[in-house]
Amino acid sequence: MTKAAPPMGRLYGVGLGPGDPDLVTVKAVKILGAAPVVAYFAHKGRRGHARAIVDRWLGPQCLELPLYYPMTTEIAFSDPVYVEALRAFYAEATEAIADHLCAGRDVALTCEGDPLLYGSFMHLYVRLKDRFAIEVIPGVAGMSGCWSAAQVPIAWGDDVLSVLPGTLGGGDLARRIEACDAAIIIKLGANLGKVRLAIREAGRETEAIYVEHGTQAAEKILKLANKTDDRAPYFSMILIPGQGRRP
Amino acid sequence: MTKAAPPMGRLYGVGLGPGDPDLVTVKAVKILGAAPVVAYFAHKGRRGHARAIVDRWLGPQCLELPLYYPMTTEIAFSDPVYVEALRAFYAEATEAIADHLCAGRDVALTCEGDPLLYGSFMHLYVRLKDRFAIEVIPGVAGMSGCWSAAQVPIAWGDDVLSVLPGTLGGGDLARRIEACDAAIIIKLGANLGKVRLAIREAGRETEAIYVEHGTQAAEKILKLANKTDDRAPYFSMILIPGQGRRP
Repeated sequence: MTKAAPPMGRLYGVGLGPGDPDLVTVKAVKILGAAPVVAYFAHKGRRGHARAIVDRWLGPQCLELPLYYPMTTEIAFSDPVYVEALRAFYAEATEAIADHLCAGRDVALTCEGDPLLYGSFMHLYVRLKDRFAIEVIPGVAGMSGCWSAAQVPIAWGDDVLSVLPGTLGGGDLARRIEACDAAIIIKLGANLGKVRLAIREAGRETEAIYVEHGTQAAEKILKLANKTDDRAPYFSMILIPGQGRRP
Repeated sequence: MTKAAPPMGRLYGVGLGPGDPDLVTVKAVKILGAAPVVAYFAHKGRRGHARAIVDRWLGPQCLELPLYYPMTTEIAFSDPVYVEALRAFYAEATEAIADHLCAGRDVALTCEGDPLLYGSFMHLYVRLKDRFAIEVIPGVAGMSGCWSAAQVPIAWGDDVLSVLPGTLGGGDLARRIEACDAAIIIKLGANLGKVRLAIREAGRETEAIYVEHGTQAAEKILKLANKTDDRAPYFSMILIPGQGRRP
């Protein structure tokens, strides 16, 4: 009689919130403390934000599975070499996780912010979802961390709220900012100069708040109008609050 | 010699997440367990969702401060009688909280979801912020809970994401849905029939997912196309996922 194969492990997509380790949910803490394998994305040669957030929550027996991005600098996403390298990376990461799941080990795949909102998790999720049982644990979004740190009520009543990547063209950005009540412009990096002009064109520059490293030690919050340079980390963002119904 | 007044209490705006008590953050749990006063919104005659979520996290010495909305049914927000009643309610709630703060007691004012994203908290925040020290603890947004429960990656890469209240006019809604990559339509209630037509007009009906009571016991998730009636709770929502860059 051959021994039955162990039951498959379960994949948890665990949202880690905006950066402060105490902004992780109770559910995430339970899963991180019990999971035999905890996976996280990082740039080669760095520990990564996700690893720093989970540090106090990992169980003593936990096996760590770092997933290292193939590139460390900001390259155009349209570059086919980049796209190919990223595809190969996701395929490899998928197999590394699948190996543990097939061996019956649960894997907690962590993700800064919320896993299904512009998260790297999604690229592995679509590759694994038809083969394994998956549970997604939502997290506090990075943008929630930013508007809370800045104490900016972002949307009221019937406000239309748009999340706009700074990678959009300037004219397109300006039109979209004008068309909504509240906006969050993400992925600033080298796009900040263009984004600033678009916000000015839409007539919202005086209300705009710039936030860098929200809820983290290096947090910086200032009015966009008071930011005198156009240098910004890729994951910084600009908040334009709504002014909707407030009895 | 007269005794010095006690130092003022601090107000915490505490996000409670989408409904599952384990989706509260560690920081929120610490504050709820230590706060001498915990305030929450509820409809008269009901216990309310916020109270149910915090139940396991309240400290033994905690004084509860329920804040009861003046109306229990869906009334048009444009009705001046309603606006006036709501304004009086917010003013009263503000004073009830201010009394505790002035007496030196910290108050945790809870809020389902995230406090600064369409949250009731904001109406008391703007009334209290110039008088007291306030800290805002972000929470997992209700919509994050919904797309995680439905396992719908909502926005990818450079997707433009719009949050659209179902209270908007049908033509306006259709144009806005067409103009973005990913959309979340909130505040359905009696608006569902109109919202459905707008989504159809924008050509997105087959992708749309309807979610009711996400992450709660009564959770219902189905394709909008498979929902045969137009009955929906006010806080249900529809998710239209983006299809952006995915190497």
